[in-house]
Amino acid sequence: MGHWDGFKGDKWRTSVDVRDFIQKNYTEYKGDDSFLEPAAESTEKLWERLQELFEVQHEKNGVYDMDTNIPATITSHEPGYLIKEEETIVGLQTDVPLKQAFMPYGGINMANNALVSNGYEMDDEMTKIFSDWRKTHNQGVFDAYTPEMRAARKNKIITGLPDAYGRGRIIGDYRRLALYGIDFLIAEKKKDLSNVGNKVMMDDIIRLREEVSEQIRALADIKEMATYYGFDISAPAKNAQEAIQWTYFGYLAAIKSQNGAAMSIGRISAFLDIYIQRDLDNGVITENQAQEMIDHLIMKLRMVKFARTPEYNQLFSGYPIWATLSIAGMGVDGRSLVTKSDFRILHTLINMGPSPEPNLTVLYSSHLPEGFRTFASHIAKESSSIQFENDDLLRANWGSDDCAIACCVSATVMGHDMQFFGARANLAKAVLYAINGGVDEKTKAQVGPKFRPMTGDTLDYNEFVERYKDIMDWLAELYVNTLNVIHFMHDKYAYEAPQLAFMETELKRTFATGIAGISHATDSMMAIKHGNVKVIRDEDGLAVDYVPANEFPTYGNDNAEADACANWILEYFMTQIKRQHTYRNSTPTTSLLTITSNVVYGKATGNTPDGRRAGKPLAPGANPSYQDGKFLGEKNGLLASLNSTAKLEYTNAQDGISNTQTINPNGLGKDDATRVNNLRNVMDGYFDNGGYHLNVNVFTTDLLLDAQAHPEKYPNLTIRVSGYAVKFRDLSPEQQADVISRTAHDRM
Amino acid sequence: MGHWDGFKGDKWRTSVDVRDFIQKNYTEYKGDDSFLEPAAESTEKLWERLQELFEVQHEKNGVYDMDTNIPATITSHEPGYLIKEEETIVGLQTDVPLKQAFMPYGGINMANNALVSNGYEMDDEMTKIFSDWRKTHNQGVFDAYTPEMRAARKNKIITGLPDAYGRGRIIGDYRRLALYGIDFLIAEKKKDLSNVGNKVMMDDIIRLREEVSEQIRALADIKEMATYYGFDISAPAKNAQEAIQWTYFGYLAAIKSQNGAAMSIGRISAFLDIYIQRDLDNGVITENQAQEMIDHLIMKLRMVKFARTPEYNQLFSGYPIWATLSIAGMGVDGRSLVTKSDFRILHTLINMGPSPEPNLTVLYSSHLPEGFRTFASHIAKESSSIQFENDDLLRANWGSDDCAIACCVSATVMGHDMQFFGARANLAKAVLYAINGGVDEKTKAQVGPKFRPMTGDTLDYNEFVERYKDIMDWLAELYVNTLNVIHFMHDKYAYEAPQLAFMETELKRTFATGIAGISHATDSMMAIKHGNVKVIRDEDGLAVDYVPANEFPTYGNDNAEADACANWILEYFMTQIKRQHTYRNSTPTTSLLTITSNVVYGKATGNTPDGRRAGKPLAPGANPSYQDGKFLGEKNGLLASLNSTAKLEYTNAQDGISNTQTINPNGLGKDDATRVNNLRNVMDGYFDNGGYHLNVNVFTTDLLLDAQAHPEKYPNLTIRVSGYAVKFRDLSPEQQADVISRTAHDRM
Repeated sequence: MGHWDGFKGDKWRTSVDVRDFIQKNYTEYKGDDSFLEPAAESTEKLWERLQELFEVQHEKNGVYDMDTNIPATITSHEPGYLIKEEETIVGLQTDVPLKQAFMPYGGINMANNALVSNGYEMDDEMTKIFSDWRKTHNQGVFDAYTPEMRAARKNKIITGLPDAYGRGRIIGDYRRLALYGIDFLIAEKKKDLSNVGNKVMMDDIIRLREEVSEQIRALADIKEMATYYGFDISAPAKNAQEAIQWTYFGYLAAIKSQNGAAMSIGRISAFLDIYIQRDLDNGVITENQAQEMIDHLIMKLRMVKFARTPEYNQLFSGYPIWATLSIAGMGVDGRSLVTKSDFRILHTLINMGPSPEPNLTVLYSSHLPEGFRTFASHIAKESSSIQFENDDLLRANWGSDDCAIACCVSATVMGHDMQFFGARANLAKAVLYAINGGVDEKTKAQVGPKFRPMTGDTLDYNEFVERYKDIMDWLAELYVNTLNVIHFMHDKYAYEAPQLAFMETELKRTFATGIAGISHATDSMMAIKHGNVKVIRDEDGLAVDYVPANEFPTYGNDNAEADACANWILEYFMTQIKRQHTYRNSTPTTSLLTITSNVVYGKATGNTPDGRRAGKPLAPGANPSYQDGKFLGEKNGLLASLNSTAKLEYTNAQDGISNTQTINPNGLGKDDATRVNNLRNVMDGYFDNGGYHLNVNVFTTDLLLDAQAHPEKYPNLTIRVSGYAVKFRDLSPEQQADVISRTAHDRM
Repeated sequence: MGHWDGFKGDKWRTSVDVRDFIQKNYTEYKGDDSFLEPAAESTEKLWERLQELFEVQHEKNGVYDMDTNIPATITSHEPGYLIKEEETIVGLQTDVPLKQAFMPYGGINMANNALVSNGYEMDDEMTKIFSDWRKTHNQGVFDAYTPEMRAARKNKIITGLPDAYGRGRIIGDYRRLALYGIDFLIAEKKKDLSNVGNKVMMDDIIRLREEVSEQIRALADIKEMATYYGFDISAPAKNAQEAIQWTYFGYLAAIKSQNGAAMSIGRISAFLDIYIQRDLDNGVITENQAQEMIDHLIMKLRMVKFARTPEYNQLFSGYPIWATLSIAGMGVDGRSLVTKSDFRILHTLINMGPSPEPNLTVLYSSHLPEGFRTFASHIAKESSSIQFENDDLLRANWGSDDCAIACCVSATVMGHDMQFFGARANLAKAVLYAINGGVDEKTKAQVGPKFRPMTGDTLDYNEFVERYKDIMDWLAELYVNTLNVIHFMHDKYAYEAPQLAFMETELKRTFATGIAGISHATDSMMAIKHGNVKVIRDEDGLAVDYVPANEFPTYGNDNAEADACANWILEYFMTQIKRQHTYRNSTPTTSLLTITSNVVYGKATGNTPDGRRAGKPLAPGANPSYQDGKFLGEKNGLLASLNSTAKLEYTNAQDGISNTQTINPNGLGKDDATRVNNLRNVMDGYFDNGGYHLNVNVFTTDLLLDAQAHPEKYPNLTIRVSGYAVKFRDLSPEQQADVISRTAHDRM
């Protein structure tokens, strides 16, 4: 059979247009989950073997094995297998399952630190090569940083910057490889190259020309890599197995050569379903085999590992790699994009049990078929392993029904957008800088401009607002320029050729900033306005503690004033961000997302005027405070909390608004069916209401306490923490304590 | 004695200002050469040893030895010596005299080609490192080149581009190291770094910040390198020996880590003389010792070697490295900058015989003291090893009396200017493209735009001029943009940190283009206008030969119309160059200079309308044609030729106008004294007349013919070829033939 036999449509045939191919060929599925098949025998065997390896890995603190002296490239390793004869989809990052590759391009010190901190020896020759002869991203960044940038970083008013790790979050459209084969993609890139620039060689044109050449070289390398596994990927995939395999090879090239923080695979379900459906229709495969291949693909995504440093693990706890896989969503023509393969992918959480990776993300809308919404709610409740994003907002704001999520909540149009990831600024700490005239409350260093501090026994609201604006002005400028340095150097020293090879040459680039501590900043403003906050100063006159005398409105309780205040902060900061020059004239965005760095941020942040205690974790992402400050916390239940979050203006936070919620099963209803229905109804309402994202956990705090005490009983307990899921036992004790202290709603 | 004891002036003490130091402290010398001392015993021993090594090197085709697997850095090698105990000035590029370092940053293929073509084996590990992990300049350039650029390069309408070798021509002001010591220079660069940019991180600011950080690192490396030789260069030099040694260490760092085509040392004579004079005044050293140190420094400069490829040697024949050393010149205050050390430096050509390196360059003015002008004329006549540049033009055009020459004729203000070197466009070949509608006359490829070809049996002048302008428009744009690519990548992959560390952070950058074939273009235009040129076409209708029926005016014979035509071409082309965007907004310049690439250019250029035969060398630089086309050649003697060249407008060719002349000694006069006086008078007149440059050879063609036949008789025969000197025996047979065919004037 010819590779395109039976496919409809023309536009996608002559130039790269995967979306057009999908729209012309996919089969919407409106039924329920009754067609699904259990795990195949091969799946059982492979999964058993993998679980053994995971167990070894767990015993060795998350590191099964590490390379020490093979700088990872697309072609650096021999082929590797779990159990070769059982695998329908093949390909590992290195030659051994779970072995972590050596990736020095981001920074040789980090690569060496990852080795040494995990008990491996660093290699002198590699150290010499990547110090004396080959400069790395990290060195480049620090060569250009200003003292102010270093101070802001050291004092953690800006934290988690991708200057010591790969920025990630770039999703190649790996489907292109399956649909077109690599030769066509190389030819298209060569055509692009001939049209980059109008002959006038401005710096940006020269840079782009070099990048496209790098992409072409990467494509050739991928072709070579595939031959190691016995595949010729020159031509398009001819059947479902090849389609899955080709797509995975594209992704594999990325994770072989790049260790970005988030290495997402994008939106592949409707695309792959077209091939699966064709094979099913032609009687080439059975449903059991379809599920087998999907299970095997997902198993591969569960195996992705990167060598990390302890500092990195503190920021992003539980070894996440964000192999985010987006499913479902609506089409602009009113059909949903739900296919049987969207079910199959969710079903992997049953066939192989819950798992943090891939980071399964449902692009949700109340317009999705009820069968799918119900099934997804069921899986969410059962596994606490999936997340939901508002597909109606995505389509409206990104102008496409082919969006995917990178990392946790960052939207990107497949093949057309890339993101410059930028970590986050701590706006809770900024509140304290506003009060203390730019002096850090923990280190006592003058980090911000030498503004006048606020004096007086209590805080004047109007005075505070002016000062807070001044600090945000300063912070936004410094932050964006710090990121400008980072992304310039990342492009220079650690360019992601294999990912960008699967994208348009002319990209839309977003410049993603981020905000930490929105709820604490909001509550602090409300406290200053309404709480008559008394200031306590240390011997140097530095404000170090705050005592609100009166109750005040807080964010997370559906209070109009507090929620409007959160939106004001967001809008003001974003406006300042937008004023700045951004690298490659990228489009500035921001996110309300902390991942698990909320713990690190909180540790670095002193007492806040809302009554939150110094050192306590910030609430993650856009979550309301769950701290025990006298007047704090979600007091009005799940729906009130969701309402507050839903009011946050997505147009001001187009990099996403993360919301993680834990619901006591009993709060959802008394039996499973009721719980599933209620959860689905809650989500329908929340997303219709403008909520952007929901991480759903369904369990009790008691379960976590038991898992904390008896980890051996819960090897696979998976929970959503903040835009991603982790195995509970892989969290640090600190992170476990934070998760346990979070609100578990026992009522709606 | 304190390092600055006895020195006058204040300005130079608190911030870097070497010129101010010189102006306040140098001792002008107006006497003759009678004070000079012969070579010291140590000099004799060292020079004898070096000549033995040179002989071995000559027998081994110019390569004494080569590193194959130590990528050269400032600190990559153990110290090396010629005869350690005899050397007053120490420091070698590698650990063994004349051993060529392995320098892969410009391009691993070139570095390997240099090895293999010289009988060495390339190292697989190095090849892997500099292919897979560390990209090189050459790869970057070719990644960004357009097909049009490749075609222009391949068809040699643009040739010699520094895309496969280091651009060179950057002169660090190494005197700074002697005057200030390295710690002060590091502190100043750190101060600069804090002031690069106003916090807004535009790409150019980020780039410059990184570069300054690289410079600071290079300075620290130089400090370490000096310790290998037992010196602590933290503080300023305390005496003449240290001043020479520190200055040389600065230069040594450059030649250890960079293999730019021209690695010039700049203008150091008056500066060093201040230290020598102070030591002489204090009775610390004798004149004999002063000459000894100068001889030893110059000997080091005679030893500089780089690994080169056969292709490179074709372009730049005779292993030149352009360790150009500029002496003399006038000050803006009317004093000359001639010191006894300017005599001492010239005297090295007597003490150690003639030598092509360092490329001794006299900044000439008729206002220089007569004693010096006479001595320089004497040395030129004796050695045919030195060149002269018009210092009056330099001061007027560059606004400084601290200019130095980089390479052959490129002016640069010490420490304040750098150049982006750009090889040259072949304007003689462009004449043929104008006639043939952009089709190359040798390869028949369509290289230029598909303009209509000129038809008809003879060439119409007005029609030709319009077409020639169109071709020059195209060529200038393509040429500048090709160079934009090259310099972007050179900065990215082979940045010259150790040179730029000795320069201002905010530099004036010139963008040096170049023209080959000016005389043939001019003569062709004159032939078309006055010669009634008959066109001969091949079977494809391509014009392949030209027969001028009548005599026509030619360039080089003091003919007003022909000389004006040369100026028109220069001005028109330069105007087109100036219209383009230039990398880093550098200031465009051009040169009339071919070095020895005139042979390669000529080989690639078909018959020209002036009657010049296909394949024959172009006249070098701005030299008039010496080809035997019926109506061609210098017919009116030396002075007429000089007059023509002097009319070329330097303001349109600020990268220099190269003029090489050979004079039969008998043509200069019947005895040595007369010859010296006449040569001096000729130069006084030529430079007063606006001539920019003169390469002086005084010998007969018979001498060269004898040297061609009996090379063993002339191991040290040195001649000026085109902005530099070579040992005649090191020229290729082709180059020797070209030199022999050049006009040797036997009358003035």
